[in-house]
Amino acid sequence: MEILERAILEKGKVLNGGVLKVGAFLNNQIDVNIISAMGKDIYEKFKDCGVTKILTVEASGIAIAVITAQFFNCDTVFAKKSKTINVDGELYSAKYFSFTHKNENTLIVPKEYLDKNDTVLIIDDFLAHGEAVNALIDIVKQSGATLAGVSVAIEKGFQGGGDELRKKGVNLYSIAVIDSMENGQVVFRK
Amino acid sequence: MEILERAILEKGKVLNGGVLKVGAFLNNQIDVNIISAMGKDIYEKFKDCGVTKILTVEASGIAIAVITAQFFNCDTVFAKKSKTINVDGELYSAKYFSFTHKNENTLIVPKEYLDKNDTVLIIDDFLAHGEAVNALIDIVKQSGATLAGVSVAIEKGFQGGGDELRKKGVNLYSIAVIDSMENGQVVFRK
Repeated sequence: MEILERAILEKGKVLNGGVLKVGAFLNNQIDVNIISAMGKDIYEKFKDCGVTKILTVEASGIAIAVITAQFFNCDTVFAKKSKTINVDGELYSAKYFSFTHKNENTLIVPKEYLDKNDTVLIIDDFLAHGEAVNALIDIVKQSGATLAGVSVAIEKGFQGGGDELRKKGVNLYSIAVIDSMENGQVVFRK
Repeated sequence: MEILERAILEKGKVLNGGVLKVGAFLNNQIDVNIISAMGKDIYEKFKDCGVTKILTVEASGIAIAVITAQFFNCDTVFAKKSKTINVDGELYSAKYFSFTHKNENTLIVPKEYLDKNDTVLIIDDFLAHGEAVNALIDIVKQSGATLAGVSVAIEKGFQGGGDELRKKGVNLYSIAVIDSMENGQVVFRK
């Protein structure tokens, strides 16, 4: 989507280690006009999928998830990150490794907020290796809900998580896909 | 505001230790219709204050902050919680004690997202002892920005943080103020 790609080029910063910093408009300071346009774009892609709930993960997925939920007129649930491995029976939980923070996390969602009657759209800000999104998909499976699909703002295509999901048949829509950031130059997939 | 008070009575749960659980609609599962109504209500109270930026804290303040930002058509910045006491010069930081989690946290905001040209409205989901809000006010002062005011969804009036802010002359608007939760019975301030 042009508005997001332009924001990445104008306001994003490519840092060492394959990190794209978009704190200026997406995940520390949030430009409401950009994420509203993204929410509408996601809605257009999934509006016929019967979505009843949006699932995201704290903290930086919440803004885009809740703005998108306005278009679907549905509730948003966010998974919390917990260091605790043992969680009681009232929670869905899934472990994943964060390449950004170099640690293992457990995502938890109370069972009362997700069940087999739901059709879930997973939303997040970034998709890189796909660890967090796969943990969210695992939680949707545990709940017995239907997975409508996954939508992310920015897919780092060169890290492979998105193409893995597509191979598995997941209905994935990434608003912007970056195929390369070599020498600080962002190249989008066409 | 009637819609929030009704949601608290119908969907909230009073737990031991003065805890009000509103995960069903506010800070784990988010009812977009309720927070949109709240965002509009906050806008009506502060629309003439020249707000240029909304400041909140991760994770549960983000949803209401970003929805409210739509009405003001301004950016939202969220403070991150850091366990690290030493932070470098590119960040504003303020320590506070979390009564909920029984630990000390440091809130951090990159300096590039807040400065003396901003007029800031602080938004959060809960105001109890006021520790987090006071840390956010400290950050606004460090930045040289003007504080337009503070708005929270739910003030636990019996824990005193809100009245302390009012005494200091802070322009505080709490959408619902709870004066007592004894015996599991929520009593709102009139």
